[in-house]
Amino acid sequence: MSILKAGPRNALTDIAGLLVGNASDERLKSGVTAIVCEKPCIAAVHVMGGAPGTRETDLLSPENTVETVNAIVLSGGSAFGLDAASGVQANLRARGIGFELGGQVIPIVPAAILFDLINGGDKDWGTYPPYRELGFEAAQNAVTEFATGSVGAGTGAMVATLKGGLGTASTRLPNGTTIAALVAVNAVGTPLIGDSRHFWAAPFEIDSEFGGLGLPHPMPGDATDLRIKFRERNHPSANTTIAVIATDAVLTKAQAKRLAIAAHDGFARAIWPAHTPFDGDLIFALATGASGKAPAMDDWIDLGAHAASTMARAIARGIHDAKPAKGDLLPVWSSLG
Amino acid sequence: MSILKAGPRNALTDIAGLLVGNASDERLKSGVTAIVCEKPCIAAVHVMGGAPGTRETDLLSPENTVETVNAIVLSGGSAFGLDAASGVQANLRARGIGFELGGQVIPIVPAAILFDLINGGDKDWGTYPPYRELGFEAAQNAVTEFATGSVGAGTGAMVATLKGGLGTASTRLPNGTTIAALVAVNAVGTPLIGDSRHFWAAPFEIDSEFGGLGLPHPMPGDATDLRIKFRERNHPSANTTIAVIATDAVLTKAQAKRLAIAAHDGFARAIWPAHTPFDGDLIFALATGASGKAPAMDDWIDLGAHAASTMARAIARGIHDAKPAKGDLLPVWSSLG
Repeated sequence: MSILKAGPRNALTDIAGLLVGNASDERLKSGVTAIVCEKPCIAAVHVMGGAPGTRETDLLSPENTVETVNAIVLSGGSAFGLDAASGVQANLRARGIGFELGGQVIPIVPAAILFDLINGGDKDWGTYPPYRELGFEAAQNAVTEFATGSVGAGTGAMVATLKGGLGTASTRLPNGTTIAALVAVNAVGTPLIGDSRHFWAAPFEIDSEFGGLGLPHPMPGDATDLRIKFRERNHPSANTTIAVIATDAVLTKAQAKRLAIAAHDGFARAIWPAHTPFDGDLIFALATGASGKAPAMDDWIDLGAHAASTMARAIARGIHDAKPAKGDLLPVWSSLG
Repeated sequence: MSILKAGPRNALTDIAGLLVGNASDERLKSGVTAIVCEKPCIAAVHVMGGAPGTRETDLLSPENTVETVNAIVLSGGSAFGLDAASGVQANLRARGIGFELGGQVIPIVPAAILFDLINGGDKDWGTYPPYRELGFEAAQNAVTEFATGSVGAGTGAMVATLKGGLGTASTRLPNGTTIAALVAVNAVGTPLIGDSRHFWAAPFEIDSEFGGLGLPHPMPGDATDLRIKFRERNHPSANTTIAVIATDAVLTKAQAKRLAIAAHDGFARAIWPAHTPFDGDLIFALATGASGKAPAMDDWIDLGAHAASTMARAIARGIHDAKPAKGDLLPVWSSLG
């Protein structure tokens, strides 16, 4: 319903210089999504969930030295999925991509995981989990036209009452800057309003990109009752939404952190509830600088607001794009009556 | 529309042991709100806006020593308003309320301010601003039945196209815990949907507490277009929403921080956009422990979610309760056609 326009792909790869690769294991019901930077990108992170799982995020603090990264990894597998960054590093090193120091090439690859260990997949992997190899494959697969829904880090994702998924969206701001989001949605809460098929993110939808249903009318009386994944089973950490917000604007590392903070309002607008103590909700920010334009003071209002709106849309699109698979514990959005 | 119930006052003072006092100066178009703790309260803060103005917030970090506070101050006056805490301290010291050390009584009084210096009020106060004395008066006025709307820290508040105000709300959770919010709403963005009278917070409304209009149908096509206070005048820091979320549950200082984080989703749900680089948006958390009950793991879902929903309702109620005054630059909600 917005008057804003999406970019040509309505995807993270509308930011020139960013590539996205998925690796999915259907038997495992899990996977890895790698965001590869063709040139090093300014990066930051902001964590708001109470149960995060991360790697190389201290490096991203504005006061620390390294300012750019070569890739970001979103992975299933809970704490085991942090191995995916090792695979991405190995792939990038083989291609000569990384931070150079004394003749060595060190790919800088921050990573975050979501919990998908209790989702009907076969987790009997022996001594070492398969995420390192999935990470290598995801980096190898990095392209501009990538799949969404039940792929990559979204393969085994679930929300309160549905399959989750990998979603993406982009926005061209009036000043020519592009902002784009990629998110693996596995929240404890729900992206839907009550028991309806309507998305909380509906006010931000562009061109029926997630079904064009708008908001329900009248609003269901139980719209804000809590619908919580696995509540009866009491798995408090079985959740997490992890994302990347990216722009072609020229940002400092501290400004990228501000963009990551702003994008969290997209979680709040698209998921109810979000940012719980049992979600590891976090957002990485990437700034390629490819537009050559640093935002003026006043540009920050639009940049922050549409970091949030683009993220909200990407969340709804991830759920919208989910596909059924053998052994699923929950239905997909497209199957709802 | 929610099935939840508000507490008997639908106010912060539904948390036994918390009192609220306002001091307002109509000529100044500004004022102070003091939240006084009858017994020392566990406290925390979480800052998400890019332009905060605060005092005694480092003390609130979970790793620092002092765990309880005697009052919280929300004030107008931008950086000058931080003097309000001095007045509250003087008032509490005279009453013998504070942290005792070697026979001295030191009231611990964290404070935050909002920017209301360009709102039609007379700011020609001579050498020293009047906030110290307003703070003293606010603490003196602390009671269980307090006014909302254009009073205290909300006296001179504005949002994008309307007068702002001081709002409050409470929720009785199914497990008997009470959670309550108090907020001075002065955001750069808007609590209303497009040009309508409808509040973004509508899905969370209880018993028509802010007009009972629900969401507009159909949703206006420009619902998410940015409406920004003073955009043409380019005063990037002329904003800020500051709040307290409180509960009678038994929380640690670190858990109080988690409650403050969760309550920020209420800003995101009630204001568009929120958390901009030009808002000093922040939330203090207070836990009295009066219920004697520490939340179990699973209780945290409800506690966090309704920290957000209660905050969203308090924001809408603050705007709803605003009253017109001489020299106002913007209309009040109740005057909208």
